[in-house]
Amino acid sequence: MGHFSLLLLLLLLPLLVPGATIPRSPALRSLGSLHLPSRPTSRPTVARDYSILYFQQKVDHFGFDIDKTFKQRYLIADKYWKKDGGSILFYTGNEGDIIWFCNNTGFMWDVAEELKAMLVFAEHRYYGESLPFGANSFKDSRHLNFLTSEQALADFAELIKHLKQTIPGAENQPVIALGGSYGGMLSAWFRMKYPHLVVGALAASAPIWQFDNLVPCGIFMEIVTRDFKKSGPNCSESIRRSWNSINRLATTSSSLQWLSETLHLCSPLTDFHDVWMLKDWLSETWVNLAMVDYPYECNFLQPLPAWPIKVVCQYLKDPSVSDQVLVQNLFQALNVYYNYSGQVKCLNISETATSSLGSLGWSYQACTEIIMPFCTNGVNDMFEPHSWDLKELSDECFKQWGVRPRPSWITTLYGGRNISSHRNIIFSNGELDPWSGGGVTKNITDTLVAINIPDGAHHLDLRASNALDPQTVLLARSLEVGYMKQWISEFYYAHLGKAVLNNF
Amino acid sequence: MGHFSLLLLLLLLPLLVPGATIPRSPALRSLGSLHLPSRPTSRPTVARDYSILYFQQKVDHFGFDIDKTFKQRYLIADKYWKKDGGSILFYTGNEGDIIWFCNNTGFMWDVAEELKAMLVFAEHRYYGESLPFGANSFKDSRHLNFLTSEQALADFAELIKHLKQTIPGAENQPVIALGGSYGGMLSAWFRMKYPHLVVGALAASAPIWQFDNLVPCGIFMEIVTRDFKKSGPNCSESIRRSWNSINRLATTSSSLQWLSETLHLCSPLTDFHDVWMLKDWLSETWVNLAMVDYPYECNFLQPLPAWPIKVVCQYLKDPSVSDQVLVQNLFQALNVYYNYSGQVKCLNISETATSSLGSLGWSYQACTEIIMPFCTNGVNDMFEPHSWDLKELSDECFKQWGVRPRPSWITTLYGGRNISSHRNIIFSNGELDPWSGGGVTKNITDTLVAINIPDGAHHLDLRASNALDPQTVLLARSLEVGYMKQWISEFYYAHLGKAVLNNF
Repeated sequence: MGHFSLLLLLLLLPLLVPGATIPRSPALRSLGSLHLPSRPTSRPTVARDYSILYFQQKVDHFGFDIDKTFKQRYLIADKYWKKDGGSILFYTGNEGDIIWFCNNTGFMWDVAEELKAMLVFAEHRYYGESLPFGANSFKDSRHLNFLTSEQALADFAELIKHLKQTIPGAENQPVIALGGSYGGMLSAWFRMKYPHLVVGALAASAPIWQFDNLVPCGIFMEIVTRDFKKSGPNCSESIRRSWNSINRLATTSSSLQWLSETLHLCSPLTDFHDVWMLKDWLSETWVNLAMVDYPYECNFLQPLPAWPIKVVCQYLKDPSVSDQVLVQNLFQALNVYYNYSGQVKCLNISETATSSLGSLGWSYQACTEIIMPFCTNGVNDMFEPHSWDLKELSDECFKQWGVRPRPSWITTLYGGRNISSHRNIIFSNGELDPWSGGGVTKNITDTLVAINIPDGAHHLDLRASNALDPQTVLLARSLEVGYMKQWISEFYYAHLGKAVLNNF
Repeated sequence: MGHFSLLLLLLLLPLLVPGATIPRSPALRSLGSLHLPSRPTSRPTVARDYSILYFQQKVDHFGFDIDKTFKQRYLIADKYWKKDGGSILFYTGNEGDIIWFCNNTGFMWDVAEELKAMLVFAEHRYYGESLPFGANSFKDSRHLNFLTSEQALADFAELIKHLKQTIPGAENQPVIALGGSYGGMLSAWFRMKYPHLVVGALAASAPIWQFDNLVPCGIFMEIVTRDFKKSGPNCSESIRRSWNSINRLATTSSSLQWLSETLHLCSPLTDFHDVWMLKDWLSETWVNLAMVDYPYECNFLQPLPAWPIKVVCQYLKDPSVSDQVLVQNLFQALNVYYNYSGQVKCLNISETATSSLGSLGWSYQACTEIIMPFCTNGVNDMFEPHSWDLKELSDECFKQWGVRPRPSWITTLYGGRNISSHRNIIFSNGELDPWSGGGVTKNITDTLVAINIPDGAHHLDLRASNALDPQTVLLARSLEVGYMKQWISEFYYAHLGKAVLNNF
């Protein structure tokens, strides 16, 4: 299969697995899709009370030939909303079922009362139930043609106008966009492109600079490595050495058998391709752990202990052991991630369980607009070296979807690093989160601000308040609420000012 | 033919003339197309020195299914450009041949040396030579699907990036967008949507609020009327009365014959439809005169004297004359506009001479995004009363192009009146220009400024300097240059500031 770039594979595995047009690996999806895959296990303990609604959207906001519409799903929760002096918090939905995001964005629920806010969660087109062409939405590039960030932002714009026109009291209220990960990018971009519709945006863990070489392609995996390095002695070094241990143990069919048994794999490894799948799956596991290295036990991608990397690293303290022992240790580490419940009988490296449409949509987006260069060198990171290969990506995308990436379009459209003329955007990043490498982590102006959370993983600040939350995320949330209150005040001041002028 | 709205007809006559799918009336085009039609007579006396270049653009910036490209034409003039401390003035081309705009935007040529500026004139897709599908570009709604302001702005963005990447010295220079009329709207919108690519915009005579009832639909014709009212005693009243005079004289075939002979029409009037055409053509003439009421003799739409409305009004001083005398006076007045040269033998009300593709493109744009409500009531204006009828427009557009207007989309996309979060846009308007009714004529903030030119018609400020220019336009141009210099300074200050930080 030639020289693959591991990181390319991480992003595009679905395209490269021979014989399978659309294989799905939930573990892989999380890197490709920024966000964490939804699972039935991720239902929140507190039931959220919201209405499910639908709004008729144009399939194509930017052309007039196709006048077809589809139903965009959105959720509204108005328990704490006040018509007098209230606000509207608008979640710019990302690549998945909006109900999952609604239930996993506890921050909005936690601040609703304080901000007298109506909560709105808008589903992203081509995800969840918001399918422009129903079951045919992913059929081919013609049907997928309307899956872009621009169309999604236009959906949000039309929906906000609709809400303001139809909900008595909403018309003269400030709207704030909120989102995490890709949804955070959408929030920031929405404020940039539609500042007349939202007074500001909270863009949590939004890697808006992970494009077009605005940041070094290796930064993502360096942060993953750093997380492991500081979570236990020799932890990252053990993982760095594990690749060659596996390579050395994967030379004969009997050693492959030993490897399969030692790692308790559900399907035994039989060839080079399986070994590559194994290493890819391992990399993805470490990446996922870096994203969900939360300070409390939780039940997200997998049921996990608090600070899961620390627990994992307890098994990876000694890199100088033999290949065999290192692999045995790896199994113990993996067991933390895949079998915290103790119920799992074997580990499945070709997991294709979660056949959500979300992964299809993201695979297309990662072949068109959302082109994020990644690379590893094995020196600054703990992974096998792989360079970024746009040509290969382009060819695979063409094979898969009949489209080619436009790697510079996002920066042409949204400004890349040159965004200082915009206002009222909070970029929050957890320093444990590998996505922070492509995020805005320094203030750009006094209204384009960065909030860094040293103890935070992937958009921890958007999660519900928890007794084990570190001080740094409490501070971040408090700053975020402060900015939002300021935007709301400024909005009302401007409106009252005008009213006063009109009256006198 | 039922009850037509005159103003609707003014905009859409091409759609409504029976038997002719795409009739073209140059006189009508000017209202529909905002700008003045190009004519061979409009060549400037001073030859402009520029290079003609082409840039490969994506036909669809907002979708990936169609990966086709086309050649966008653009012009560059760099005689006065300085690599050291210079600037780039970027004309955001509107609905016509870019060479015509280049030759008729003397202001840019006049200020090039002072601003050490490279001049770039970018042709708008679907106009001039920049045809996405060559001769098939106007074939049907599928081929026309990429004719939108958003696609045009994206062309400009890609072109600017290309220029910065390929012209040594251009990379670190500030770019300013300039345009007039629809091109002025594009300049303003470009700064709003791509502030990372241009430091500011001069939007001359850009009626960005002539949408979605942001201004009263009657304002345009009220301004036309005001121009005539103040250009001669009883002038507007004479025109107001003329409609009924014509109606009364159009009842029998012999009176139609008299009317045709008195007005020296090339083709005699034969029925109601012809009379409607006549009145439409008359209205259009008065509108055009209001747009080109320039202070000096010039050769634009027609060869015209200085302050042409004053000359016209010399023949329309007495509204109390008989119907016959009023029509005779009308002829004298029309002769000023259509026969200043004295060479014209008869007046042609169904003129279809200028078969430029531009009118086709505009007719489509006026059926999709650029939906400007117009109306008259005969009281505040001198025209026959007609209300705005979106339904009728929509049906005619569907019949003609297979598309329907989206009358609110422009305000959803570009913000309508709520644009105060943007910066560095100059909105200049001539108070004689009927398009000023939909323009920004008051400062919005200290960086979103209005410059009003009391003696100015349609973007007089963008025209070349002339000895007869009124003081008010000299002042306007001087303010405009002042703002542009400030933006350029701020750009270099920000860049130098960074350089200093890096060095120390």
